[in-house]
Amino acid sequence: MKKRLFAAVDLGGTKIYTVLADAQGNILSHTRLDTKAAAGPETVMEQIVSSVFAVLGQAGASFANLAGAGVCVAGFFDWQKRVLVHSPNMAGWDHVPVEKLLQGRLGVPVIAENDANAAALGEARHGAGAGSRHVVFITVSTGIGGGLVLDGKLYRGVRGLAGEVGHMLLEPDGPACGCGKKGCLEALASGTAIARMASEAVSNGSETALAEIVKRPVTAADVFRAAGAGDMVAKSIIDRAVHYLGIGLVNLANILNPEVIVIGGGVSEAGDAVFTPLRSVVKELAVKPAADSLVINKASLGVEAGVYGVLCLLQDQCGTWEG
Amino acid sequence: MKKRLFAAVDLGGTKIYTVLADAQGNILSHTRLDTKAAAGPETVMEQIVSSVFAVLGQAGASFANLAGAGVCVAGFFDWQKRVLVHSPNMAGWDHVPVEKLLQGRLGVPVIAENDANAAALGEARHGAGAGSRHVVFITVSTGIGGGLVLDGKLYRGVRGLAGEVGHMLLEPDGPACGCGKKGCLEALASGTAIARMASEAVSNGSETALAEIVKRPVTAADVFRAAGAGDMVAKSIIDRAVHYLGIGLVNLANILNPEVIVIGGGVSEAGDAVFTPLRSVVKELAVKPAADSLVINKASLGVEAGVYGVLCLLQDQCGTWEG
Repeated sequence: MKKRLFAAVDLGGTKIYTVLADAQGNILSHTRLDTKAAAGPETVMEQIVSSVFAVLGQAGASFANLAGAGVCVAGFFDWQKRVLVHSPNMAGWDHVPVEKLLQGRLGVPVIAENDANAAALGEARHGAGAGSRHVVFITVSTGIGGGLVLDGKLYRGVRGLAGEVGHMLLEPDGPACGCGKKGCLEALASGTAIARMASEAVSNGSETALAEIVKRPVTAADVFRAAGAGDMVAKSIIDRAVHYLGIGLVNLANILNPEVIVIGGGVSEAGDAVFTPLRSVVKELAVKPAADSLVINKASLGVEAGVYGVLCLLQDQCGTWEG
Repeated sequence: MKKRLFAAVDLGGTKIYTVLADAQGNILSHTRLDTKAAAGPETVMEQIVSSVFAVLGQAGASFANLAGAGVCVAGFFDWQKRVLVHSPNMAGWDHVPVEKLLQGRLGVPVIAENDANAAALGEARHGAGAGSRHVVFITVSTGIGGGLVLDGKLYRGVRGLAGEVGHMLLEPDGPACGCGKKGCLEALASGTAIARMASEAVSNGSETALAEIVKRPVTAADVFRAAGAGDMVAKSIIDRAVHYLGIGLVNLANILNPEVIVIGGGVSEAGDAVFTPLRSVVKELAVKPAADSLVINKASLGVEAGVYGVLCLLQDQCGTWEG
């Protein structure tokens, strides 16, 4: 029997993470390499091919065993035109037909997807949303992104932008966001926003241990650490960010009535310090039956979420794993 | 050949609107009667049966020709338990198994749905969203409600609350909403909100023609009329409400990336006075490719939207109309 294997690639601005899975979805091998983002799409495509070759080799398989491949990448992937319109992490990646370029090199069907969408699907089917058909995924780190799994399937909207929860406007006259607008969730509750509020507090002369960090910029991790140690200024910054994140979840709960909201990214690593107040904001402010039917979970797949999602898409595309 | 007919009922707190349609979806007859809401569900069920009898009679048909019926109603309809959990317009309508009650009386399959969901489906398939698979419907009148048609199908979420856009929180410390929270879209941009801002302006001694209305409360229609006549206070109230409605649409555009947002309800009747500024807020503040792929349309089915949506659901349920 000819073995059918699938490669899934998470293409990031700094790392390429590639796994090989069998027809049952078991991961057989994986590899990680530094992305030569500055060298442009052609070079990165060669890197992806090398990484696929590497995971096949590790598993004692060859290109002849490869039945399909998929790649997820940060940025706006137009799912109807099948083109990566823009990637924020890799300069010059505009209007790149990722699937076509890889398909020519690998000789098997290739699918591409936005990384947050892939992670959403991965978490919904195999992670913290497993067992639920209505799952919203949010990743909160330097930025805030997300993806929607509705009725068991990835929901992309008309062009592939659905799930852009980070630019939900919550304070029309609020702080500036990296996107050029003001008062986006990302400008109020991301790791970057937490770090910015800390710097502002220090500049304003607030009495806080964060003022002792002088040789480098204050990070969100510093603020969580200081808050954990009882620093009141750091605590109020975290409270504020979590309150806004809670309002973002309230709006998602009211608009989509999901069964589970899964939260990943660096900020979710703070655990109960984030999840306990977050759950109480949603309980208090969402429409009651929407709040009552909602569970808020920490993401469970970590950096694997994207490749799991890509494997799900390959599964949907290629029929059953066993097929 | 035995003729297969379908009855669709829009059950409101003040009126029951019932239509009869043939297997091709053509409306053959309709009737409207006053809802005896205070008399309780049993009496209203009898009224619905009478209305179905009336539309059959008008069309020269009998109960033997009826293949199915559907009813849409304001309130929280739990689509998994098939129970109307609560209706804001009819006191005492808690946990009513609408479908079961009607099915027993009519002797044909009956489906029930929330009225905004039904209107969303009606507008998406036969109204201002026709031809698009990704349609968000918002109705802006005394309250703000909505429904989502995603990938061509009504999206209900886990319990049937999806589309509760009126309680999207936009101003965490904003004006009180009827729901008990503060700063909901409904408290900022509904007809009720417009009337409230006008009363506040009059109380504060603002120089406005609205101050001349003394024998009855100021309404949103008064404010639109005064704004149209050049009253600056009225204009700024409308601007403010439209701006918030625009922010609500921005969030829906970013979260769902719909192809069309359809706006119905009394406030949409103001036409360009609302739609022109609304479109420019969305263009300015939504994620660019989401804004670029979005059309904002005025609802086109008026009070028929609900019954059209119910007919769509019956069609989906009963297979093809011709079946």
